[in-house]
Amino acid sequence: MLDRLKKKIIEVKDFPKPGIGFKDITPLVEDAESFKFIVDQISDLAKKKGAKRIVSIESRGFIFGGPVAYKLDLGMSIIRKKGKLPRECVCVKAPNEYAVEYFEIHKDSVRPGEKVIIIDDLIATGSSSISAVDLIKKIGGDVVGFAALIELSFLKGKETILAAHPDIEVMTLIRF
Amino acid sequence: MLDRLKKKIIEVKDFPKPGIGFKDITPLVEDAESFKFIVDQISDLAKKKGAKRIVSIESRGFIFGGPVAYKLDLGMSIIRKKGKLPRECVCVKAPNEYAVEYFEIHKDSVRPGEKVIIIDDLIATGSSSISAVDLIKKIGGDVVGFAALIELSFLKGKETILAAHPDIEVMTLIRF
Repeated sequence: MLDRLKKKIIEVKDFPKPGIGFKDITPLVEDAESFKFIVDQISDLAKKKGAKRIVSIESRGFIFGGPVAYKLDLGMSIIRKKGKLPRECVCVKAPNEYAVEYFEIHKDSVRPGEKVIIIDDLIATGSSSISAVDLIKKIGGDVVGFAALIELSFLKGKETILAAHPDIEVMTLIRF
Repeated sequence: MLDRLKKKIIEVKDFPKPGIGFKDITPLVEDAESFKFIVDQISDLAKKKGAKRIVSIESRGFIFGGPVAYKLDLGMSIIRKKGKLPRECVCVKAPNEYAVEYFEIHKDSVRPGEKVIIIDDLIATGSSSISAVDLIKKIGGDVVGFAALIELSFLKGKETILAAHPDIEVMTLIRF
């Protein structure tokens, strides 16, 4: 199944910038069977780790975080790019392959000590994933796992996340 | 239940611009019971209308579209803001209360004649909702419904959508 999933991802060269090979996941999300498989796999991790809350990262993380939360009868808290959340937030710098962005979350989005799984679409260098973990810790959450559909393994992002946060289980489904 | 849901929405004055009363839905998504109720209600509409595909609009539409697609064993196609999708797209102007934006979708995201439900978080003036319907029709989809969590009824968006597309069922859960 994972091989089938990987074949559905379309690599688009030089998008959004020259030199970047963009992984287009829309064919996976558009295919009911693939989408279900991905959501079920991430849900299994969240369940195994005893997560009491899903946190997803704008905007492609929302696509997978929502159904995982729904399936497990959990609430979902959202990390957004700076300036989009209207109330009191905590903010962290979140560098990615293209640019330096900032992640924000409402201060009251996680209960103290709550076990949380963070969901995003892709792990590249791991820097923005680490920023997301830091952000949730800052508002009092206990991050027990990080799940992403894709890992660009040549960038060693998973290793970088684990070096910064050895106590977190990092799961990716498809590796390039 | 709808009264309980409405009370959880936090209105933030003058965000993102002076004069706008922003409806913060994060407390609803963070609450498992509320989130489940919303997803189930939208799913009922999609089922009733015989939808074979979910289309959701970036980025808050993704939050509800994903679990509806998952629940009904459907695929989800995504409408994004201009410049974010990497392959051949169709583009429409999508004016909202704040600005004129552009919506895009990959040309191959819907099958010819496929029955589609579009999901977003909020209907304000209805202009961007109409743009989304136009976009899906342009790539060959048969839009049978439009669902949003919130309706700003003083802006008469629902009426505006129905005037443009009388054949579509428009559902909103919470009215201000």
